[in-house]
Amino acid sequence: MQRPIAILDSGVGGLTVVREVMRQLPREKVIYFGDTARTPYGPRPAEEVIRFTREIVSYLMQFKPKMIIIACNTATAVALEEIRSFVDVPVVGVINPGARAAINSTKSGVVGIIGTVGTVRSRAYEEALKRLNPNIHVASLACPQFVPLVEQGNFRSDETDETVRDSLTPLKDIPLDTLILGCTHYPFLTESIGAVMGPGVKLISSDSETAREMSTILQETGKLASQPELPVHQFFCSGDPRIFKRIAQQWLGKQIVLTPVVWQIPQIG
Amino acid sequence: MQRPIAILDSGVGGLTVVREVMRQLPREKVIYFGDTARTPYGPRPAEEVIRFTREIVSYLMQFKPKMIIIACNTATAVALEEIRSFVDVPVVGVINPGARAAINSTKSGVVGIIGTVGTVRSRAYEEALKRLNPNIHVASLACPQFVPLVEQGNFRSDETDETVRDSLTPLKDIPLDTLILGCTHYPFLTESIGAVMGPGVKLISSDSETAREMSTILQETGKLASQPELPVHQFFCSGDPRIFKRIAQQWLGKQIVLTPVVWQIPQIG
Repeated sequence: MQRPIAILDSGVGGLTVVREVMRQLPREKVIYFGDTARTPYGPRPAEEVIRFTREIVSYLMQFKPKMIIIACNTATAVALEEIRSFVDVPVVGVINPGARAAINSTKSGVVGIIGTVGTVRSRAYEEALKRLNPNIHVASLACPQFVPLVEQGNFRSDETDETVRDSLTPLKDIPLDTLILGCTHYPFLTESIGAVMGPGVKLISSDSETAREMSTILQETGKLASQPELPVHQFFCSGDPRIFKRIAQQWLGKQIVLTPVVWQIPQIG
Repeated sequence: MQRPIAILDSGVGGLTVVREVMRQLPREKVIYFGDTARTPYGPRPAEEVIRFTREIVSYLMQFKPKMIIIACNTATAVALEEIRSFVDVPVVGVINPGARAAINSTKSGVVGIIGTVGTVRSRAYEEALKRLNPNIHVASLACPQFVPLVEQGNFRSDETDETVRDSLTPLKDIPLDTLILGCTHYPFLTESIGAVMGPGVKLISSDSETAREMSTILQETGKLASQPELPVHQFFCSGDPRIFKRIAQQWLGKQIVLTPVVWQIPQIG
């Protein structure tokens, strides 16, 4: 039997990773969990984010995934090591892939990062970048207004453009040539962000980079799916299923199988 | 003690991978072997390429590398599995990283591949692409005139431009948006190839993609170098040391420590 890849996020942001997995590795089956009842994670204390992430991972383990993707920068920043310590399958976050892609992209050696308050405060990207290459210069900026826009499905509008422009003003005078979209919600706003930053700044999305590293690790460990038929993905959300389903179908371009979760705190070890 | 990464190639082509490792992961120490006495590998029978690759890997194992990179497409195509079966460290080739990057890049789903006769005949890229994503369409072309240009250090000239233009003519009518430079020598010719293919075709270099996958695998297995001081790399070649040294210093932009190898066939298991 084909074991799935479990992908979890605080809400709909991780769907950007799902779309990339479907595009790059169409044979892989995905089980997705969006914690839409408790989104956003960005402003929450680290202990709470760790607890929520553990709950969701415990829930997803019933599907016997071969890999877990924490498709949420905030949860990756504070909970990745914790989750790695209590499951026996590879756990991939979105921060190392984004950092690695930024290092591959930058010529000036100056990399910008935008993310939630939680992600920026954790300094997880700075540390990931410096661990790989100590010569990289980093400029970080929290953009707390972006996630609510995306969770409302407000991807492109005059209001969105204005919010994006105002939020990114502090980065305009910094000589960066690469900007990490350090939140899986932000690729929904790529057009606005790209228009503000201009063509000289390459945007790095966690979504495609994470799907690609997932592909590397599955292949190196001999776990790539090989069955010829296309898989049926499954989606779970803890909040309003109508909004989730609308955004998921709009973003993924297809009908989805959605199971709303009446959230009960699972037993965790 | 810091264990090095062993990188081997049929000649100077693998220096493109070395440069990317130095750029992306400046803390990693590299031991490089260029088999310049027996280059090119492209036109040779598979059995011979396998034998040469085994000889070089056996030689390099004395340095106790933590990873081996086969930075030669021809050798990857025919010898990767063989080498994996007789060493106990991870062995990374250049084909899977290039295929993965092409899948990430393409929007049209049509990917071109240029390589040596040996690489194209092996169909290794087609198989790597289809294994990841069966929906990709592939067009392959052997360019046997490219490696001699590079091994002579003739990176950009009217002669080079003309050879590149003539060689790539068969690809001009194919609606590809991504072209894999399926030979580690070809990044030396990026300017010429890019000028012929035009801005609508993204060029995928094995060099940066392979360095990046190396980074992923080292990090996932907890083997990234962490010492603060910069490493001293070592270079070996089996042919004329003057040509090798000139190309290496020109390409890497620094003085190198080169040990010419008086080639003796090592004992292999």
